Amino acid sequence: MGFSLMRNQKFMPTIKHLLIISIAINAGLLLKLLHHEHEWAGLPGPDINGKNAVRPVKDVLHKAKPATDQYINLNHGDPTMYEVYWMQMGDKTTLVLSGWQSISYFSDTKNHCWFLEPGIANAVTRLHNLVGNAQTRNYHIVVGTGSTQLFQAALYALSPSNAPESMSIVSAAPFYSSYPLIIDCLKSGLYKWKGDASKFNKDDPYIELVTSPNNPDGSIRQAVVNGSGGILVHDLAYYWPQYTPISFQANHDIMLFTVSKCTGHAGIRIGWALVKDKEVAKRMTKFIEISSIGVSKDSQLRAAKILDVIADTYEHTEKFDKATPFFHYVYNEMAKRWRQLRSAVSKGQTFSLPDFPVEKCNFSGQRFGTQPAFAWLKCEKSIDDCEGFLKKHKILTRSGTHFGSSENYVRISLISHKEEYDEFIRRLSLLSSMSSPHE
Amino acid sequence: MGFSLMRNQKFMPTIKHLLIISIAINAGLLLKLLHHEHEWAGLPGPDINGKNAVRPVKDVLHKAKPATDQYINLNHGDPTMYEVYWMQMGDKTTLVLSGWQSISYFSDTKNHCWFLEPGIANAVTRLHNLVGNAQTRNYHIVVGTGSTQLFQAALYALSPSNAPESMSIVSAAPFYSSYPLIIDCLKSGLYKWKGDASKFNKDDPYIELVTSPNNPDGSIRQAVVNGSGGILVHDLAYYWPQYTPISFQANHDIMLFTVSKCTGHAGIRIGWALVKDKEVAKRMTKFIEISSIGVSKDSQLRAAKILDVIADTYEHTEKFDKATPFFHYVYNEMAKRWRQLRSAVSKGQTFSLPDFPVEKCNFSGQRFGTQPAFAWLKCEKSIDDCEGFLKKHKILTRSGTHFGSSENYVRISLISHKEEYDEFIRRLSLLSSMSSPHE
Repeated sequence: MGFSLMRNQKFMPTIKHLLIISIAINAGLLLKLLHHEHEWAGLPGPDINGKNAVRPVKDVLHKAKPATDQYINLNHGDPTMYEVYWMQMGDKTTLVLSGWQSISYFSDTKNHCWFLEPGIANAVTRLHNLVGNAQTRNYHIVVGTGSTQLFQAALYALSPSNAPESMSIVSAAPFYSSYPLIIDCLKSGLYKWKGDASKFNKDDPYIELVTSPNNPDGSIRQAVVNGSGGILVHDLAYYWPQYTPISFQANHDIMLFTVSKCTGHAGIRIGWALVKDKEVAKRMTKFIEISSIGVSKDSQLRAAKILDVIADTYEHTEKFDKATPFFHYVYNEMAKRWRQLRSAVSKGQTFSLPDFPVEKCNFSGQRFGTQPAFAWLKCEKSIDDCEGFLKKHKILTRSGTHFGSSENYVRISLISHKEEYDEFIRRLSLLSSMSSPHE
Repeated sequence: MGFSLMRNQKFMPTIKHLLIISIAINAGLLLKLLHHEHEWAGLPGPDINGKNAVRPVKDVLHKAKPATDQYINLNHGDPTMYEVYWMQMGDKTTLVLSGWQSISYFSDTKNHCWFLEPGIANAVTRLHNLVGNAQTRNYHIVVGTGSTQLFQAALYALSPSNAPESMSIVSAAPFYSSYPLIIDCLKSGLYKWKGDASKFNKDDPYIELVTSPNNPDGSIRQAVVNGSGGILVHDLAYYWPQYTPISFQANHDIMLFTVSKCTGHAGIRIGWALVKDKEVAKRMTKFIEISSIGVSKDSQLRAAKILDVIADTYEHTEKFDKATPFFHYVYNEMAKRWRQLRSAVSKGQTFSLPDFPVEKCNFSGQRFGTQPAFAWLKCEKSIDDCEGFLKKHKILTRSGTHFGSSENYVRISLISHKEEYDEFIRRLSLLSSMSSPHE
């Protein structure tokens, strides 16, 4: 018994020691883990550890509501509305890039588009197949520094280098305000901006830019020139189910898309073109090779990750707890914003908005009218300069004159932060219900 | 005693239980940590946990030596040589990007270059101040999709938009082979490639491109045209201490740099311009706004991190164990490669290489001659088509004809993977020592 007690007495401290050591190890591991979590987060921000349940916006964004005497800038289509969704997705879209990545210029020497990362080619194909907005089979993918670079690549690829006259580029008014700026920027001898497609003399060879849904007015578009020498470039940046019903699978010769307006990551500067003709795709690739020796690999890898997560929110819902799948979430947000906008405008006769036909969306099964990323607002009554009128009331917009239209119209971005949007709606409601808008 | 024993008996299992629980927690935390480490690594690769000691190349790269009948492509200046260094730096340059980053187009609305990430502006300034290769005080920084985009931005900014004739662009031969391609790509009415600066009629206004050290031949350059209407653009992509002695702090009006040739990250597509005149910087910014609505934020953040780590290898050596600081490491590698190259060429009279004057480097304190990223190799004897001759022996290079020079010359990249480089040296030695090169 004495012996046994001795053994016990000797044994007890040993267990205690082990316990102390074990607890010390625990503490060490916990510290290391916390350190990891801290690094993992990358930049200051809210908890990113998989809490996907919807939380109040202010909790995650800490975005201050603009003061009533502050300007609200809705001139650019800066898609900051999307931040909330991606914050709620936590670390699902976190990307870790090691120091030895992105060394070589080349991504895939077997592809005619040698700077295309295979991951983004896969993700783009997967997402189009999921949404059904564009065919990908038998198409060549060309990646670009945003669709802006791809648009220039298409013009370069489609304009003969030895033609006696430069190629005419047209688009039906109201057209995207950047088209004339980009096209005439360098006074190219290959092509020239010829303005409104509906006024174009169709005897010359031309390229018609078809933007659908259209920027700025949200209309669903088809080519308007019926010339025999016409080549079409389709800018489908907004042909996604948060903005418009997906009523058909597009299969045009050249289709341009951009991450900016699909996922909201404008700062990534990644776009892609789906191109039927191999030689055209090769010439587009050549343009991007000459103008920037390819496209950021880092951004391609990030874009691939984000597009894949969007597809995962539909195809691997088990990974996402109760999070709303991407397009449904953004669709709901756009629908709410359009309800608020139409309600504000309907308070008086100061403003009007276009109407959009209701169609069935093959992706969601829902019936709805286009709910564009921009409002194409018309000032009624005696207001001529709509941009100037709104600017006086500290709302910055872009005048219709930039889009080949009249100063009665303005384009207003609807995809900014919620706090900005709410304050915009508050101000618009006040202006809308004023008896005399010149007050 | 019985009571005491009972207490002990009861107590002992409790400690044991605590121990078991504690060990279980240990195991859980360890598992979680291992999982983290796994995610942290990002992509398959070697151990990245801070093992900075130099390890054999094959251990980290797993790069196969080219078979003797395989082509070696040294046509492009693909800087894959740098991979080894960045692998050895482990996770020091790892960057974690969260899903909600890079949403907005804007990086710094207070800066005229609104898409410039403040982090890269700081890192660029810090590195130039450390190396002493360029003044940054009173300069405006413009970031671009590689220096290629900045070069075009400079041409746009410096060519009047309403001049009766287009601006002449010249550069002394041998000049960078991409200059004519980029300049005449869109047949711009603003500017036109006029070839070799040394043959230029100096009565017209012109822009002279001064590349120093020069691509392809490594020479240290100054402007050659002495016209009154001349504007200079300095391409200083290779003015770093691994390639050439830093003999003065450059303070030209417009200086272009690129991450590709400084750190080796060509796939990042980031360059920067240091610009004296604010209006020129603003017009360059405008060009990048029109041509790509800014520059990838992801790549800017990565470039900033990498440039900062380079500065850290000098200013915070305690963080880096025994790792060689960046420029010293790459300098040694370039010196070794040039020794191997000159030794191979000296085996016979088949080839010759330019000589470079020895100067003191203000950065390292060492005296050495330029050791360029490219060899400007001349085929002697009866070999006329040097590119064709080397191609027959499965070495792909770029003919002097692309650089405004003769076919007796080729440009050969010296900054590829070690395995490729070694095989190139082996083949070149054999050719060099052949009695008749036409065998």
